[in-house]
Amino acid sequence: MIKKNLTINGVARMVVAPPDAMLANVIREQLGLTGTKIGCGQAQCGACNVILNNKLIKSCITKMSRVPNESTVITVEGVGNPDNLHPLQLAWAVHGGAQCGFCTPGFIVSSKALLDSNANPTREDVREWFQKNKNACRCTGYKQLVDAVMDAAKVLRGEMKADELFFKIPVDGEIWGGNMPRPTAIAKVTGTLDYGADLGAKMPAGTLQLALVQAEVSHANIKGIDTSEAEKMPGVEKIVTCKDIKGKNRITGLITFPTNKGDGWDRPILCDEKVFQYGDAIAIVCADTIENAKAAAAKVKVDMEVLPAYMGAPAAMADDAMEIHPGTPNVYFTQNIKKGADTKPIFDSAAVVVEDDFFVGRQPHMPIEPDVGLAYMDDGKLIIQSKSIALNLHRMMIAPGLGIELDDLVMIQNPTGGTFGYKFSPTMEALVGAACMATGKPVYLCYDYHQQQTYTGKRSPFHVHMRLAADKDGKLLGMETDFNVDHGPYSEFGDLLTTRGFQFMGAGYDIKNIRGIGRTVCTNHSWGSAFRAYGSPQSFYPTEVLMDRIAAKLGMDPLELRYKNVYRDGSTTPTGQTPEVLSLPEILETLRPKYKAAMDKAKANSTATVKRGVGVSVGIYGCGLDGPDTSGAKIELNPDNSVTVYNTWEDHGQGADIGTLTTAHKALRPLGLSPDQIHLNLNDTSLAPDSGPSGGSRQQVVTGRAIKATAEIMIEARKKADGTFMTYDEMKEAGKPLAYEGKWSAPATLLDENSQGSPFSVYMYGVFMAEVAVDTTTGVTTVEKISQVADIGKVCNMLCTDGQIYGGMAQGIGLALTEDFEDIKKHSTLVGAGFPYCKQIPDDMEIIYVQTPRPEGPFGAAGVGELPLTSPHAAIMNAMTNACGVCVTKLPALPEKVLAALKG
Amino acid sequence: MIKKNLTINGVARMVVAPPDAMLANVIREQLGLTGTKIGCGQAQCGACNVILNNKLIKSCITKMSRVPNESTVITVEGVGNPDNLHPLQLAWAVHGGAQCGFCTPGFIVSSKALLDSNANPTREDVREWFQKNKNACRCTGYKQLVDAVMDAAKVLRGEMKADELFFKIPVDGEIWGGNMPRPTAIAKVTGTLDYGADLGAKMPAGTLQLALVQAEVSHANIKGIDTSEAEKMPGVEKIVTCKDIKGKNRITGLITFPTNKGDGWDRPILCDEKVFQYGDAIAIVCADTIENAKAAAAKVKVDMEVLPAYMGAPAAMADDAMEIHPGTPNVYFTQNIKKGADTKPIFDSAAVVVEDDFFVGRQPHMPIEPDVGLAYMDDGKLIIQSKSIALNLHRMMIAPGLGIELDDLVMIQNPTGGTFGYKFSPTMEALVGAACMATGKPVYLCYDYHQQQTYTGKRSPFHVHMRLAADKDGKLLGMETDFNVDHGPYSEFGDLLTTRGFQFMGAGYDIKNIRGIGRTVCTNHSWGSAFRAYGSPQSFYPTEVLMDRIAAKLGMDPLELRYKNVYRDGSTTPTGQTPEVLSLPEILETLRPKYKAAMDKAKANSTATVKRGVGVSVGIYGCGLDGPDTSGAKIELNPDNSVTVYNTWEDHGQGADIGTLTTAHKALRPLGLSPDQIHLNLNDTSLAPDSGPSGGSRQQVVTGRAIKATAEIMIEARKKADGTFMTYDEMKEAGKPLAYEGKWSAPATLLDENSQGSPFSVYMYGVFMAEVAVDTTTGVTTVEKISQVADIGKVCNMLCTDGQIYGGMAQGIGLALTEDFEDIKKHSTLVGAGFPYCKQIPDDMEIIYVQTPRPEGPFGAAGVGELPLTSPHAAIMNAMTNACGVCVTKLPALPEKVLAALKG
Repeated sequence: MIKKNLTINGVARMVVAPPDAMLANVIREQLGLTGTKIGCGQAQCGACNVILNNKLIKSCITKMSRVPNESTVITVEGVGNPDNLHPLQLAWAVHGGAQCGFCTPGFIVSSKALLDSNANPTREDVREWFQKNKNACRCTGYKQLVDAVMDAAKVLRGEMKADELFFKIPVDGEIWGGNMPRPTAIAKVTGTLDYGADLGAKMPAGTLQLALVQAEVSHANIKGIDTSEAEKMPGVEKIVTCKDIKGKNRITGLITFPTNKGDGWDRPILCDEKVFQYGDAIAIVCADTIENAKAAAAKVKVDMEVLPAYMGAPAAMADDAMEIHPGTPNVYFTQNIKKGADTKPIFDSAAVVVEDDFFVGRQPHMPIEPDVGLAYMDDGKLIIQSKSIALNLHRMMIAPGLGIELDDLVMIQNPTGGTFGYKFSPTMEALVGAACMATGKPVYLCYDYHQQQTYTGKRSPFHVHMRLAADKDGKLLGMETDFNVDHGPYSEFGDLLTTRGFQFMGAGYDIKNIRGIGRTVCTNHSWGSAFRAYGSPQSFYPTEVLMDRIAAKLGMDPLELRYKNVYRDGSTTPTGQTPEVLSLPEILETLRPKYKAAMDKAKANSTATVKRGVGVSVGIYGCGLDGPDTSGAKIELNPDNSVTVYNTWEDHGQGADIGTLTTAHKALRPLGLSPDQIHLNLNDTSLAPDSGPSGGSRQQVVTGRAIKATAEIMIEARKKADGTFMTYDEMKEAGKPLAYEGKWSAPATLLDENSQGSPFSVYMYGVFMAEVAVDTTTGVTTVEKISQVADIGKVCNMLCTDGQIYGGMAQGIGLALTEDFEDIKKHSTLVGAGFPYCKQIPDDMEIIYVQTPRPEGPFGAAGVGELPLTSPHAAIMNAMTNACGVCVTKLPALPEKVLAALKG
Repeated sequence: MIKKNLTINGVARMVVAPPDAMLANVIREQLGLTGTKIGCGQAQCGACNVILNNKLIKSCITKMSRVPNESTVITVEGVGNPDNLHPLQLAWAVHGGAQCGFCTPGFIVSSKALLDSNANPTREDVREWFQKNKNACRCTGYKQLVDAVMDAAKVLRGEMKADELFFKIPVDGEIWGGNMPRPTAIAKVTGTLDYGADLGAKMPAGTLQLALVQAEVSHANIKGIDTSEAEKMPGVEKIVTCKDIKGKNRITGLITFPTNKGDGWDRPILCDEKVFQYGDAIAIVCADTIENAKAAAAKVKVDMEVLPAYMGAPAAMADDAMEIHPGTPNVYFTQNIKKGADTKPIFDSAAVVVEDDFFVGRQPHMPIEPDVGLAYMDDGKLIIQSKSIALNLHRMMIAPGLGIELDDLVMIQNPTGGTFGYKFSPTMEALVGAACMATGKPVYLCYDYHQQQTYTGKRSPFHVHMRLAADKDGKLLGMETDFNVDHGPYSEFGDLLTTRGFQFMGAGYDIKNIRGIGRTVCTNHSWGSAFRAYGSPQSFYPTEVLMDRIAAKLGMDPLELRYKNVYRDGSTTPTGQTPEVLSLPEILETLRPKYKAAMDKAKANSTATVKRGVGVSVGIYGCGLDGPDTSGAKIELNPDNSVTVYNTWEDHGQGADIGTLTTAHKALRPLGLSPDQIHLNLNDTSLAPDSGPSGGSRQQVVTGRAIKATAEIMIEARKKADGTFMTYDEMKEAGKPLAYEGKWSAPATLLDENSQGSPFSVYMYGVFMAEVAVDTTTGVTTVEKISQVADIGKVCNMLCTDGQIYGGMAQGIGLALTEDFEDIKKHSTLVGAGFPYCKQIPDDMEIIYVQTPRPEGPFGAAGVGELPLTSPHAAIMNAMTNACGVCVTKLPALPEKVLAALKG
């Protein structure tokens, strides 16, 4: 141990710590200052930024032995607090800088260090600073962060009053459609929101710290697990193996389609007979400290017979490949789409036919917060708190495996530092549950970033062969597709994902005749989980690249070709559904002048070595789970006549809080409540009705409608003859209920055996435009601007939807150019996996809304989250082709691929 | 476990805790909000006050299961913070409301709750509130706290600006003699100063929690210790018994006089052969959590042969009493005083002789912070952090017992919530050291209040028979004393204490002829430790009561009798020393008019049942350890030309920080430093020279002189030819040392075999006046006013000395009327032991300084801490006699004793 006298946020503190302990851990776990976050733990994200002796540092890699005695430390808690916000914190909140908010404290501390040394930075200075200091944000696309720093600097320089920045509720009291910051914003910018690791640090003494014993091979038979030596290690309370699991020891995949050849019980909680992928959990060491738990985990011996690992769909589909799950073929689900006339004669006679093979890769989600969870017993019930965005779904998926009655399992979502979909699958929920059940004690588990990358689900790659046929005027005649989905070893949602291919290949265009076949393939690479825009980036990529090829072949403008083919009266979607609104023509019309100007600019600015180009792409996504998606909500009247809204609108960081608040406020307008009279109690399955999971941009629509329905019930119940409403006291006096529950189900259908149906009642429509520069000497592609004209219906909260779209497009840039998770070793860090830092994302991003009210949306709203990641990569790649003629069909388009294509 | 959503200091927090956990522990240990303190843990002190749902509560007894979900909690951190002080916090600092500061957060939260409900309270309202809410302060006597609340209320009402309250450094830059708040004030009022338990809560994961196995009898032979069952209990790392102690397993008492019949090696670290007193430590359970440690401790079986317990000096001195330490007589030290002529003929012929038996009891120190400590290894050295006020002394006392080289043992004082002397003895230092050495891990031990009361040292009772002889004019002729000191089972400092009787019985008066005998007696009651004014309250009580008896016999006024006898030119102290200054006449002259007015008032206000009276007493104490007391200090020049002062001026709460700062500032005046250019690094034996212990009001004098000496060395070293001083850069350039050490030794001598000598170079002189009301129907005595005219030399910091004197007098009221630790069960709580709450201490307290410069004091200063507790109880008891004729010679004068005396 070493003792240091430190002045932390102006307060003298004596700290005793192991010399090798990292400052971040000491600040957080010993001093309770959990505003400082630990993201990657490898100095690649800046979440742990603190100012040490006037210098910005990464506290996650700063050993206590290297912190000089008598040092001064400033953490986010020392920058400002909820009662006394620093201008940076205020600006961050009002600019929507905090989405999930996990990177926010680090950014704010970093920005403070910048402004301390440069009071008047340019936007580019700010971007350089964030780049240099590796401040990573996965939600926002950075633009709103730079906006915030610029305004905060103005306030600090006295050029703007803090009051001018504050959000003010409009005179008419209407917050719908406005820019009200989310309710959690202040907590996020001040570091006072407790995420999972913060809650873990604040658990009672005696909470067991968990370390996993994990497979370091991708496919093996397990012949024995020897925990005897590990059990003798210091501090070990118990080592949980498959033998300790009381139930079926399987997470059920809840498979959607009866033709699935698996049974859905293929994913072990703790491996028993086989290892199916790298990282599979084999045992859980429960110990007093994390150091002891890890030391003991290293002593668990696993006797394995290593098997051939099938690291992609082609390998797993080979004739000699063994069944990964014995008894279930590796191709375990096949679906067709048949729509309209037989396509063979059409293609044989079409004026234009284009076709190619495409691959959109295993994009990693890369939230800044690694996976984390905890479990404990409360009054006989097992409580699991995690980043789950599918609380009630996960209860059903893990209860049988754990051997617990559904009623005895409560799930609660912790404030969550980003998921982008990976938490649609259970990750560690069953593991913490099993450890808690086996020990009877509270338990806590936090992944390091290697575990986050290697043992959570990924976007499933699609290997697609697509053909499009058009007539000589560019009118699309038919589409043929044949694709294999590399879904990793676990079936959950895999069949559904494959059908997404049928929903979104060719979407946006009126194609009467379609034939296709899609297969879900079991492999030994990372299990396939949901990822924002689930299945659509893989589907739009071939479509939108081939659309440009048709245009090229016909000498048409790509935008005009799209304009000719997009949905209009009489059009149907690839699944045969009639679109609920027809806004794509207007969207393209809105974009057209900007597109022309961009084209001119690109040409003018191209040089001998730097080629500039412009690309567009159509993107569409449904809002909902397929079919009659249902959600519930509850509203309770409080003694002070305020209300509390309950639901399970889980929050990735997208804004469940502002979504619920704004929708409830709008729905409750007859009662005249101000926003602060609407309290939220979200995401505790013991308190809230089931609102379903937060995936597929469904919550604003489906839970939004449930909130509206519930509000209407309450308003009706409180209505008095004179048109006023009963107060809490009057309701009590009258013996009327104080809490009301409401529901809503989408008028939609599941796809039939031909993949035809109307799965969603509301869609989102958009067109992207990318402006890129390709350095033909290096192959480096820079997105100089990216824009979206988006129709997400009537916008609920502009600050929030702006942030969703900026951030989604930023992820599209990563998907197009850098992000990958193929090489388990290389891609297991943020930097290794191609995480986009500030300078990779253009400061110039533009959003134009076309607000077509949705008939089924609450107050006309659709969702938003998936839309911006449907096809931005396609626009970027089309722009690259436009710039330099190169088309990279297998993403990401790394510089070496571009260079090779330029040379070849 | 239960989950609660709480809003703590305006921030939403999700908390998971055991239902039986107390809110205080959850706030502190889980949430890291250690501003809320745990004192008694029994709802008797208010240190744990928080505001729960707008109501002031004791969080130490509030179970989490009883905290409603969605509650709001306000802790001191939510009242204000260092950057944004609440007016209460500011007023507390500038009024010197925080001495040790441990009760401060609770008081501030309590006061906030008061002002929230009553914006304009009277002083009496404030006092009623503190009384009702059992807000206990042991340092201040409450007056300054009420001052603070009144001013804060004015600020909150807008009648005073906060700026008016702030301390301002005078224009001439001189802070000596002023009211500058102590450097730790802001940290104390904001709850940001980390005391031992706060540091414990912030230790690294894996720190072992210690629970003691303690004797529940007072005297026994140990036949066996069986830890086998306990070792199997959950979470146990090790159970440390005497067998695990590497050294002699004894704490050496460092006995002072060679005639001591013991060897000083009588106190075991962990009992091996015998139990000597209730609470003696037998084993230490080291476990992962305190709950597990305690559960295992309850399973340790100790086989004992219970022996007769000698719970007082008379019992231990009985002929048939066995030797408590076999081989050492129970009366282990005897000392005589022989001064002047044989007293027998004088007493035989004197005009007046008075005599009686007196008993001043086992006063418990009752700091609000219970004892607490921790230990860890740092680079091969054992580091012990505790409340020690005698760091280097303790190193020497425990190192041989632990079996560690002195150089390998570092001691550090934690910020300390009051000791009043009990920490002059090691308490748990050797226990945490032994546990750390046995496990190699950091360890933490915190006593509950029962342990604090029963297993720390107490004031040792004196059984005194005293005779005084005077001539017919009241001139004292001689004194005879015979007294036994009940010192408990451990010899440490016991012989020294007995000599205190000879130093202070009869002190203040010129008595030429003295004979006396004093004995140090080993008993089985609580071990005797230092307590403020050590040995003097027991000595002044008989003297000052008998002085009033002489006055009564002669029909003289008690004040005038004293005036006649106090030290003047040619006087010597009881030990034959010539007083260094002669201020007692001036002190009495200053008091005289107030005394007369008080006498008149008391007579006027007496009623048939409530009798009022006035009493006075003389009090004197030396500043230093006996003889050539030595101290060292170090001053280092920093790169920014500020300096850092190092010493081991340990802080009970008396103000080592402001004492060091003010003395250094004064001594360094030629350098022109502002106070904020003088940094302090106190009380780490690895960094600071040995400044000796903080006892006997020595530090201001002895370490004050060392600081002055060091400053002079530095000034000389930096002096340039032109009279200016070299900067850091110039010193470096010149290759001169940057750090300087200095020393000072008092010109004083140890007592000889006749108890004659000049043990102290500086004394403090004072006279107390008490005005009391005795309700003759109930026996309840109320101190309506208490005053002191004090000569403590030139005052260093008025705010600090005021606080010391108010607080000391308050402890005198407790000593006189209520405080006791005789009945181990009854007296083991604050309430049971007669702790004085606000209404027991008068709001009307007066201090008048007579500032006679001390030749040997730094800048003329003496000490202060002991003076106010030398004899205030004697003034009170004299006032009681004056009021109603009753004299209670055995303290405390509980109402039943007073009633019995009134009746008998």
